Amino acid sequence: MNNNAPIGIFDSGIGGMTVAQAIRELMPHESLIYFGDTAHMPYGDKSRESVRHYAEVITDFLQKQGVKAIVIACNTASAHAASAVSEALAPVPVINVIDPVVEVVAKRAGSGKVGVIGTKGTIRSRVYVKRLHKANPRISVVSHSTPLLAPMIEEGFFNNSISRTIIHSYLSKSTFRNIESLILGCTHYPLIRPEVEEFYKGKVEVIDSASVVAEAVKANLEKAGLMAETRCKATYQFYVSDKTTSFEKSTRLFFGEKMALKENRIWD
Amino acid sequence: MNNNAPIGIFDSGIGGMTVAQAIRELMPHESLIYFGDTAHMPYGDKSRESVRHYAEVITDFLQKQGVKAIVIACNTASAHAASAVSEALAPVPVINVIDPVVEVVAKRAGSGKVGVIGTKGTIRSRVYVKRLHKANPRISVVSHSTPLLAPMIEEGFFNNSISRTIIHSYLSKSTFRNIESLILGCTHYPLIRPEVEEFYKGKVEVIDSASVVAEAVKANLEKAGLMAETRCKATYQFYVSDKTTSFEKSTRLFFGEKMALKENRIWD
Repeated sequence: MNNNAPIGIFDSGIGGMTVAQAIRELMPHESLIYFGDTAHMPYGDKSRESVRHYAEVITDFLQKQGVKAIVIACNTASAHAASAVSEALAPVPVINVIDPVVEVVAKRAGSGKVGVIGTKGTIRSRVYVKRLHKANPRISVVSHSTPLLAPMIEEGFFNNSISRTIIHSYLSKSTFRNIESLILGCTHYPLIRPEVEEFYKGKVEVIDSASVVAEAVKANLEKAGLMAETRCKATYQFYVSDKTTSFEKSTRLFFGEKMALKENRIWD
Repeated sequence: MNNNAPIGIFDSGIGGMTVAQAIRELMPHESLIYFGDTAHMPYGDKSRESVRHYAEVITDFLQKQGVKAIVIACNTASAHAASAVSEALAPVPVINVIDPVVEVVAKRAGSGKVGVIGTKGTIRSRVYVKRLHKANPRISVVSHSTPLLAPMIEEGFFNNSISRTIIHSYLSKSTFRNIESLILGCTHYPLIRPEVEEFYKGKVEVIDSASVVAEAVKANLEKAGLMAETRCKATYQFYVSDKTTSFEKSTRLFFGEKMALKENRIWD
């Protein structure tokens, strides 16, 4: 495997670009190929079978681009398809957005109460609850789906009265009382992390996946001896399965700068 | 054509059930076959080409079920695919959700100012602006996309502080000042019509498509001599391209009672 081969990243849409951005910040020499399945976005309310099928076809596309590792930058796909994708690609490293977060939280949380928020698909799968309990049986885990947050963020509604009202409504649920930490279980949510922290006034540790996952990707590449050479300039390619101008605009929101999107209609 | 054949109705998801419900109320003897393309929902930010392709495949499925008429109960699909579907199906009547509303508003509005809200796809297509101008060149039309309303409604957030904040934020845009009527250009929006009316305190006429379209369907069936016999009991069948329990729950919201959904994975 070529050390300078790109890292493949995929998501149902553009939320996973927060993970791409965190990887770029941590490892500026790594090239990235991103695939956003905008034809099927959002995955949050799709069935397990559908999400697994989409993940397999996208992974196949990324493999054909010669990627050296794959990041499933979508919680729903990580919940439904991570093991299928890992098996199909072995020994290519596959990093999902759930396990690295579970590992960090399970170590830190002791016997505390942990909250999880995410899309309907992620929460219904109970993936965080099961994996956190397996990693640390003393943790108590409560979770709630918060399906309006991703469209709210895509609409650019954050840091305003609407986002405050919606976030307050979701986080005020009584089952979340006395949590010690909150996992933001959706790759859109790093963009509202400051507002969530403001809601808790520093009393709850807020964990988003982007930075944790970037660290996990680095550890995996180092272990496999696959880090890019530092003299090489990184390239970034963004594909979507259905392109619109509003997605292209949104890259600025999620990747920090406006990027050109290439359309690849893999479903046609 | 059999008078007791069902009417086919389709939408990107479950919003079009508001139209199905209005048809059932107006014509209780008409059988309905509904297809919600939940695998691709929402259509609001899909490209024109994709939406047209989806509409053609779904129409083909409905035709094979022997429908006597087709209702495109989705604004985005009505904007992008109505003429293609109508041509392909002639002489089977095809009713979209835009033209009947345009006809009603163009007659009533005189030379007033009309506002339109809808998804990104509907508003970007400028379909209401163009058709209203064509029908009545004296009307002035202003439109804004309101992409958070449909997910908000699906989440059951209406008649509460969140919906009031979001609706207020959208409708307070300065370009909407002094409108005489507002078209709710999305089949989800009949559910928030009371709140929109409350916002305007009776000073703006609010038009949603569900009841207007039901009347248009009736007129089309009468004209074609295709009304069902009143001694026949109507049947209702609901198909989705990707089934989840939350969609099934939502039928109560959109169709007035919980209905069983059948899955038909026409895209696999």
